[in-house]
Amino acid sequence: MVAKLTDVAALAGVSPTTVSRVINKKGYLSQKTVDKVTKAMRDLGYKPNNLARSLQGKSAQLIGLIFPNISNVFYAELIEHLEIELFNHGYKSIICNSENKPEKERDYLEMLAANQVDGIISSSHNLGINDYERVEAPIVAFDRNLAPNIPIVSSDNFEGGRLAAKTLQKHGCQSILMITGNDHSDSPTGLRQLGFNYQLQKKADIVKLPKELSTIRREIEIKSILATQNPDGIFASDDLTAILIMKIAKDMQLRIPEDLKIIGYDGTTFTENYFPQLTTIKQPIDEIAKLCVEVLLKKINGQKTSKDYILPIRLLPGSSL
Amino acid sequence: MVAKLTDVAALAGVSPTTVSRVINKKGYLSQKTVDKVTKAMRDLGYKPNNLARSLQGKSAQLIGLIFPNISNVFYAELIEHLEIELFNHGYKSIICNSENKPEKERDYLEMLAANQVDGIISSSHNLGINDYERVEAPIVAFDRNLAPNIPIVSSDNFEGGRLAAKTLQKHGCQSILMITGNDHSDSPTGLRQLGFNYQLQKKADIVKLPKELSTIRREIEIKSILATQNPDGIFASDDLTAILIMKIAKDMQLRIPEDLKIIGYDGTTFTENYFPQLTTIKQPIDEIAKLCVEVLLKKINGQKTSKDYILPIRLLPGSSL
Repeated sequence: MVAKLTDVAALAGVSPTTVSRVINKKGYLSQKTVDKVTKAMRDLGYKPNNLARSLQGKSAQLIGLIFPNISNVFYAELIEHLEIELFNHGYKSIICNSENKPEKERDYLEMLAANQVDGIISSSHNLGINDYERVEAPIVAFDRNLAPNIPIVSSDNFEGGRLAAKTLQKHGCQSILMITGNDHSDSPTGLRQLGFNYQLQKKADIVKLPKELSTIRREIEIKSILATQNPDGIFASDDLTAILIMKIAKDMQLRIPEDLKIIGYDGTTFTENYFPQLTTIKQPIDEIAKLCVEVLLKKINGQKTSKDYILPIRLLPGSSL
Repeated sequence: MVAKLTDVAALAGVSPTTVSRVINKKGYLSQKTVDKVTKAMRDLGYKPNNLARSLQGKSAQLIGLIFPNISNVFYAELIEHLEIELFNHGYKSIICNSENKPEKERDYLEMLAANQVDGIISSSHNLGINDYERVEAPIVAFDRNLAPNIPIVSSDNFEGGRLAAKTLQKHGCQSILMITGNDHSDSPTGLRQLGFNYQLQKKADIVKLPKELSTIRREIEIKSILATQNPDGIFASDDLTAILIMKIAKDMQLRIPEDLKIIGYDGTTFTENYFPQLTTIKQPIDEIAKLCVEVLLKKINGQKTSKDYILPIRLLPGSSL
């Protein structure tokens, strides 16, 4: 038999109104009363119905997280930090893996809107501005320019690209190139390339590897780049690509850092633990998650927000240069 | 202004009842009608209120996924597959990162119950049987024995441990040890150790590394094991530990596979792409996700389920032995 609110009241020896006040955290309540009611609810396995509360104008405390994938280690760590931060604020996270498919991203946006989530944090971008502007729930973007009114949290991509180029120069590299994705969207990550170019004061060599490529296909492309272009310094726009380059260089008997210096971008805990030799530009994942949630809560509470929130990056030195 | 159901009906040129039938997929409707209504809903940005529908006895189509963490690459890939599979069945995934904290796991169980999720898939185990038996929503466990009535999906852990030992024997190893976590729970993953022992027909050397240890601490422990026990074959109960052992062995000038042969467990896409040299026992992550969802849907639909669902593992050969 499912326990009712009145059963909880009887067991706790309080009125049903008091139980309701404990559930809705409303009005003054002594800690003793809260403890008694909480214990009675637990003993009886009583669950207040959140959906009913939601219809009474209380929120279901759900936030949608839209990401291109979950298993990329950078996204996995960011999602983990977002979940922890949201949980600390009483929210649950609905994870939406867009798989870079516009239809799936649109389906999710509509499902999230229909489910009346309290807000959305998105780092996926397969739709037009219209699709995003139509969503009523507050949205905060990480590293994506979704629509004019949607705030963007990102690491200092421009300075990161500049620092990567500067560091390779400082280590004496003459033939420097950057390997990056083929993102055509007007995304802040494009600033990594701009900062890189700015530092090298010329149109630097940029090689674009489409993100849809399989790892094997990427290996073939990178091998060909190393063989034909003979760079002595490479900036990879993410750590996984940098790790792949290190692996291929080793297979090709290139010595790191003597023959080839490599610098990555992201600096996840995973990279620090398993590839401490990789020099990389570290994004402050923990602070990014905190700031995304802080800005989202501001929007949820109707407070004013800025358009851009940029967090500092730093160099994480390793033996790859 | 927020669009109402009647606005959709007017734009589509149909009755409000027809719009409601399209939303609830009820009764016969021509494709033409469905298309007209869908287009009108999209043009107006109309969102049917799922919460209201839920109170009318229709489900909010939410599934809770409780995992000890998200950023471990095995969990990240499994969660990714679960999300894809659940999405294909019209469900959204609430991601619950228990962080191996009992209070957080209990909070999540209560939040999920209060939110009336349709079901739960859990691979976290920090609570007692009572806590799980109290939850009304159908639960399926991956690799965890949560309560007598909760089905378990897992890979063939016993055969995996046996195959690892057998493979090390076949490659001539004399001094074989297993490095595993310190899981005290009655979890199916313990079968890896049993299968390993069974094959070696004696109490094999088992070293337990508490999972709470930091990576640096784990490195120190592994270095000490390699230096004092001089094994020529190691079975690590997960790939990340195997990768760490390979890294430390290299630092210690041990040659792999000449001086030390290593075999892991998990076989994620990440391992295949970035550590193809690692020999490992591959769990069929994609099939595990499909089976978890299939069994959960059976429970949701009131169909009978078994207690144990075991999927075959296979050897993924590399140059580490």
